[in-house]
Amino acid sequence: MTEQSSEDRQAFKAVVLAAGEGTRMRSARPKVLHHVAGRSMVGHVLTALAAAGAADVSVVVGPDRDDVAAEVLAYAPHAHIHVQRERRGTAHAVLAAREDIGAGAADLVVAFGDTPLIYPETLARLRAQLHGDVAVAVLGFEAADPHGYGRLVRDGETLVAIREERDASPAERAIRLCNAGLMALSGAHAMSLLESIGNANAKGEFYLTDVVEIARARGLGCAVVVAPEDEVLGINDRLQLAAAEAALQARLRREAMLAGATLQAPETVFLSADTRLGRDVVVEPHVVFGPGVVVEDGAVIHAFSHLEGARLHRGAAIGPYARLRPGADVGEGARVGNFVELKNVSMGPGAKANHLAYLGDGSVGAGANIGAGTIFCNYDGFRKNRTTVGAGAFVGSNSALVAPVSIGDGAYVGTGSVVTDDVPADALAVARARQTVKADWAAAFRARQPALKGKSG
Amino acid sequence: MTEQSSEDRQAFKAVVLAAGEGTRMRSARPKVLHHVAGRSMVGHVLTALAAAGAADVSVVVGPDRDDVAAEVLAYAPHAHIHVQRERRGTAHAVLAAREDIGAGAADLVVAFGDTPLIYPETLARLRAQLHGDVAVAVLGFEAADPHGYGRLVRDGETLVAIREERDASPAERAIRLCNAGLMALSGAHAMSLLESIGNANAKGEFYLTDVVEIARARGLGCAVVVAPEDEVLGINDRLQLAAAEAALQARLRREAMLAGATLQAPETVFLSADTRLGRDVVVEPHVVFGPGVVVEDGAVIHAFSHLEGARLHRGAAIGPYARLRPGADVGEGARVGNFVELKNVSMGPGAKANHLAYLGDGSVGAGANIGAGTIFCNYDGFRKNRTTVGAGAFVGSNSALVAPVSIGDGAYVGTGSVVTDDVPADALAVARARQTVKADWAAAFRARQPALKGKSG
Amino acid sequence: MTEQSSEDRQAFKAVVLAAGEGTRMRSARPKVLHHVAGRSMVGHVLTALAAAGAADVSVVVGPDRDDVAAEVLAYAPHAHIHVQRERRGTAHAVLAAREDIGAGAADLVVAFGDTPLIYPETLARLRAQLHGDVAVAVLGFEAADPHGYGRLVRDGETLVAIREERDASPAERAIRLCNAGLMALSGAHAMSLLESIGNANAKGEFYLTDVVEIARARGLGCAVVVAPEDEVLGINDRLQLAAAEAALQARLRREAMLAGATLQAPETVFLSADTRLGRDVVVEPHVVFGPGVVVEDGAVIHAFSHLEGARLHRGAAIGPYARLRPGADVGEGARVGNFVELKNVSMGPGAKANHLAYLGDGSVGAGANIGAGTIFCNYDGFRKNRTTVGAGAFVGSNSALVAPVSIGDGAYVGTGSVVTDDVPADALAVARARQTVKADWAAAFRARQPALKGKSG
Repeated sequence: MTEQSSEDRQAFKAVVLAAGEGTRMRSARPKVLHHVAGRSMVGHVLTALAAAGAADVSVVVGPDRDDVAAEVLAYAPHAHIHVQRERRGTAHAVLAAREDIGAGAADLVVAFGDTPLIYPETLARLRAQLHGDVAVAVLGFEAADPHGYGRLVRDGETLVAIREERDASPAERAIRLCNAGLMALSGAHAMSLLESIGNANAKGEFYLTDVVEIARARGLGCAVVVAPEDEVLGINDRLQLAAAEAALQARLRREAMLAGATLQAPETVFLSADTRLGRDVVVEPHVVFGPGVVVEDGAVIHAFSHLEGARLHRGAAIGPYARLRPGADVGEGARVGNFVELKNVSMGPGAKANHLAYLGDGSVGAGANIGAGTIFCNYDGFRKNRTTVGAGAFVGSNSALVAPVSIGDGAYVGTGSVVTDDVPADALAVARARQTVKADWAAAFRARQPALKGKSG
Repeated sequence: MTEQSSEDRQAFKAVVLAAGEGTRMRSARPKVLHHVAGRSMVGHVLTALAAAGAADVSVVVGPDRDDVAAEVLAYAPHAHIHVQRERRGTAHAVLAAREDIGAGAADLVVAFGDTPLIYPETLARLRAQLHGDVAVAVLGFEAADPHGYGRLVRDGETLVAIREERDASPAERAIRLCNAGLMALSGAHAMSLLESIGNANAKGEFYLTDVVEIARARGLGCAVVVAPEDEVLGINDRLQLAAAEAALQARLRREAMLAGATLQAPETVFLSADTRLGRDVVVEPHVVFGPGVVVEDGAVIHAFSHLEGARLHRGAAIGPYARLRPGADVGEGARVGNFVELKNVSMGPGAKANHLAYLGDGSVGAGANIGAGTIFCNYDGFRKNRTTVGAGAFVGSNSALVAPVSIGDGAYVGTGSVVTDDVPADALAVARARQTVKADWAAAFRARQPALKGKSG
Repeated sequence: MTEQSSEDRQAFKAVVLAAGEGTRMRSARPKVLHHVAGRSMVGHVLTALAAAGAADVSVVVGPDRDDVAAEVLAYAPHAHIHVQRERRGTAHAVLAAREDIGAGAADLVVAFGDTPLIYPETLARLRAQLHGDVAVAVLGFEAADPHGYGRLVRDGETLVAIREERDASPAERAIRLCNAGLMALSGAHAMSLLESIGNANAKGEFYLTDVVEIARARGLGCAVVVAPEDEVLGINDRLQLAAAEAALQARLRREAMLAGATLQAPETVFLSADTRLGRDVVVEPHVVFGPGVVVEDGAVIHAFSHLEGARLHRGAAIGPYARLRPGADVGEGARVGNFVELKNVSMGPGAKANHLAYLGDGSVGAGANIGAGTIFCNYDGFRKNRTTVGAGAFVGSNSALVAPVSIGDGAYVGTGSVVTDDVPADALAVARARQTVKADWAAAFRARQPALKGKSG
C-alpha cells in the first residue's frame, strides 16, 4: 500500500463501524477479527485509513467486545472506541461516535471493519470529492449482479439518490452502479446531516444512506467515487473470507514480483501484508510467510518453508522445510536447512544448520556449523535459557546443548554429546559412552524370535 | 453428502457396473479402484447409493478381479458380486446380476463404478421418477460439447429415444441433452425389459439404451432427470481423474467453510470425503487430510500438516509440519509441533510435543512435555511395544524411550537419555555420560588439516 | 518434448540471440539465466533446437557475460559464443555470428533466448517452409491484444510484409496475426539477405524484420508459421516468468498423467523439464521435483516431498516430507519416511528409514532398518566420509554413525549409540551410559521453582 505523508493534504477523521456480529461466519469470534493475509480485517481497514491520512479514528464496536477494542488499539493506539449498545441502523452506529465527530470541522470518512481490501488511495479519492458545495461523497461499484444492493441514481456526475432495491423503479433496477457503503461527509455539515436522519421506515432504523436526500434538499452536492467490486465488498461468510484472501494474495504476489522477486509458483506462496522481499530473492513453491518477515536481496527460500517474525540477510538461504519463528535472524550467506526450526536465535554470517535441528533462544557465531540433530535445550520445564555458540565452532551431530550454556569460538563438540557446562574456545567437549561390541549377539537375538515378520513404522 | 434415512422411502435395488478395464488409465490397477478424495471411485458410488436408500446392491466386476470385489465389500458388506465373463455390452453386464434383479419387485437403479461425483440426491431423484406408467428413468446432462454422446430425444417432458450419434438426424445432433448412462427401471418391468434387449447391431452387443424404445413400444413411460455434466461423467483417463478430484475437493471445501471452518487458502487444502471439521477450526495453507480425520471446534491446523485417522480435540493445535497417523489422538488444548510424527498415540489435555519427535504406540499424560528430538522406540526389529508417559512428566530433549517402558506421573527424564527401565512417579532418570573437555584440542585438530575448505551438507 | 533423430532431415544452423539485458526483470542476473521448470530459459531454447535437429548453434551474448556463455555450453558444448558489443538491432545481433552463418549453405533458424516454451516441432515446421523459392519463414501468433506488435501482412498464404504498428494503416492495425520474432532463412540466401539490411530508420538500428521486404524485392518467397501466443512470447518481467512456469508445468503435468502417472492434485505438483515418472506412479499433493529425477513404475511419492537428482526403483515409497538430494537411490520396495533426508546414499531393496533421519554419503543394504533420529555423520568440519550399513542390519533410534564407518550385515546398533568403530556382521554395538534413577528428584525440583508457569517452545 502506498504510504502518503500527512503534509500533502489536510488531515481528516474517520469512523469505522465494527459492531457487526457476522452470524453467517458461524464463528464465536467477531467478524472483524478474522484474518486476511496475516492481519485482522479491522487491522487492514485501520492501516488503509492511516495511509490515506486519517488523523483521528473512532471505532464503533458491539457491547462486551474488549477483543475488538484491543485489536483496534494494536493498529491505532490513539483510536477512540465507542460501543453501539443497540442495533438501530448504520447512522445510529456512526452517531455512537458523536462526541468525536462534533469536536471539530475536519472532514469525516465512514468506513467498515469488514472490507479488508480497501485501498488507501480509494479512501483518499473519496474524501477528495469534498470541495465546493459537495458535502457528501459515496463509494460505488459496478456490480456483476446488482440484485439486493442499493442503486446509485445519478444525474450526470451528480449523485441524486441511493435507492434501495425494494423502492426502485424498473429503470432504476437496471442500474448496475451500487452503493458500497463507505462515505465521506464534509466537516462543516457532517454532524448536522447525521442528526437529521430519521427512522420513519419499515424497520424503524436510522440509515446512513438517507444522508444523500437530506443533503440535496439543503442544496448541497453529492458525488460518487467508483471502485472495483472486489475492493469494496464486505465479508460475510467464510467463502467470502477465502475469496478476499485470494484477492489480497494476488495483489501482494504481483507487487513482490514486479519489485524484483521471483515467485516460482506464486499461487502456492502466501504472503503477509507486511512481508518485504528484496531484489533477486527467489521463493520456491509452497512457502508461507507469517507477519513480520524481511528478506534481503539475493536470499533464497526453498520449498515448504514457513517464516514468521524473521529476517534473512543478503544471500542467506533456507529450506526446504525450514521453519523460522519470531526472532530468527539468518546472517549474510548463512544457511538453514531441512527440518530445522529457529526461534529467537541469530545466526552469524556463513553459519550453517543444515539438518534436523531445534535452535531456540540463543546465538550462533559466524561460520559455525551446527550438526544434524542438534537441540538447544532452552526449556527445563520452568524457565527459558540461552545457548551461545561461538564463531567457527563445530557442534557434532545429535548433540544437546543444555542452556544456559556457552560454546567458545572455534570449539568442537563431539557427536552425540549432552553439553551442560561451558566449553572454552578451541577446546573439545565430549560427553558420551565408549562403544562396546558383542560378537554374534544380533544373530542370537534373531534366533530367539518366534516369528520373523517385523514391520517397522 | 446428505444421509437420508431409509424410513422416508421404499428401498430399491442397485446394480453397479464395475467391470470396465479402463485402458486409457494406462494402469495395472482396475479403473474403479483409483482414488478420489481418499476413497476409491467404486467406494464413492456405493456410499452414494447407500445414502440414497439402496437396500440391495449387486456389483458386476471383470474376471479375476478379487481386488475389486474386496473393495466393494469394504463399503457394502452385503453386496452381491457377479462376474461378467465376456464383454457383450451394458445390458449384458447388468444381466450378469440376473438372479438379484429377478428376486423381487423392487425398483432397480443401474449405476456405474467410475462416476465418483454422483450425488445421492440425484440417484434418489432418478428413482423417484418411477411412478404411474413410468417404467424407465434416464439420467441426462447438458453437454458443453455433445459430440460422441447419445442424445436424449424428448417430446415435452417425455423421453422418446436415446439416439446414438451415428444414427442421429441433423436436428437430433443439435440436441445438447445427452445420456449419462445411469438409469432406473421399475421393479415390475425391469427383468422383462432387460431380457427383451437384442444384439442386432454392428458390434453384436446388448445395449442398455435400447430399453427406452422397448418400453415405449409396450406403452410404458420414460422420463429424464438432468444433472450437471461434471456430476455424471465417467472417468476414463488420469486427466479426468484429476478433474474429478478437483471438483470433489471444491465441493468438500465449500461445505467445510459454510459450516464454520476457516480454510485460509482452500485451493491448497485437500480433504477426504469423510473429513469432519468443527466450528472455528482454522486450517492454514497446504494441509492434507487423509481418511478418518475428526477435528473438534476451535482446533488449529498449521501449514504443511498431514493427518490420517486422527482426532483433534477442542482447541488442540498442530503443526506446522505435523504428521498425524492412524490412532493419533490429540487432547484438548494439546500441542503437536513441527517435524513431529504421531502414530497410535494419545496425548492428554494440554500435553506438548513441540519439535522433531517420533511418538509411536503409546500415550502421553495430561500436561506432559515431550522434549525436542524424543523418540518412542516402539520397534525392536521384530515387535511393536508401547511407551507410557505419565501426566505432568517432563522428557528431556534427544531422549529415546525404549518400549515397553513407562515414565511415571511427574517424572523427569534427563536430556539425551536412553530409557530402558520404567521410571517411578516424580523420579529423575538419567542415562548419559559425564562431559569431559580437552583444552585446545580443536585448535590442534584444525592445524592438522591439510586443506581448510570444508563444505557441510 | 519429442526427440527427433537427425537422420530424418537435413541438419540446420541456429543463431540464438541472448544478449538482452532484461531490465524489467529488475535482476542482477541476465534474463536468459532465469529458470523455468528447473532449467534456464536459454537452456530450454537450446534443448528445443537440438531436438528439432539444429546441428550447429551460435549464441550471441552481451559483453562480459561469461555466466551466460557457461550456461550455453552446459546445454550445447559445441556452441559458438559471440559477443554483441553494441546494441544496434536484431539483425546486427545476428551478424555478430557472421562467421558461422557464412561458413556453409545450411539453412539458418534465428531464435531467442527468452522464449522457453517453444516446441521443437514449431522450430522444425518453421524451417520446413524453406523449399522452392521460399527463402524466409517467419513465426507468427494470433495476438489476444495485438497492440504494440508488428503485424504480419499476408496475401493469401504468402507473407508480404512485417509492419510495425507505427507504420501500419488502419486496415493493417486490425490484423491480429503478429510477429513472434523467430525466423528461418534459406542457406543459399541468408548471408546476402542479412547483409542487405540497412539502418535508415528513426533509431538507426538494423532490424531483422526488414528481411521480408528485401527478399520479396528479389523475387524470393516468404512464408508464415503460426503458433499459439503462449508458446512464442518472450519473457520480460517476473510476472511473465511466473506465467511461463505455469504454462510449462501444465504441459509437463498433462504429459505425465497421460503416460500413466496419477497426480492427485496436479496444480500443486512441480515438475522439472526432465522429470521421468513411470506407469502407476502416484504423486500426492504438494510435491516438488528438481532436475534429474527418475521414478520407476508403481512408486509412490507422498505429500510434501522434495526430490532432486534422485531415483526411485519400482514400488519404492517416500514421504510425506521426504527430501531426496542428488545421488539418492531408493531401491525396489524401499521406504523413506517423514523428515528424512538422503544425499548421495543408496538404499537397497526393502530397506527402510521411516522417521527423522539424515543419511548422507553412504549405502544401506537390502532390508536394513534405520531407526528414527539416525544421523550419518559424514562431515567432520573438513572432509566428507562414507557410512556403510549392511543388509539386514538394524540401527537403533537416535544413533549417530560417525563416518568413515561400516555396520556389518545383520548387525544391531543399540538405541542412542554413537558408533565410531566398524561393527562386524551379526554383532551388537552399544555406546551409551547405563540408566540411573533418583527417586523423588523431580518432585523436589518442582518444589524449588518459584513460579510454576512454564511455557514450552
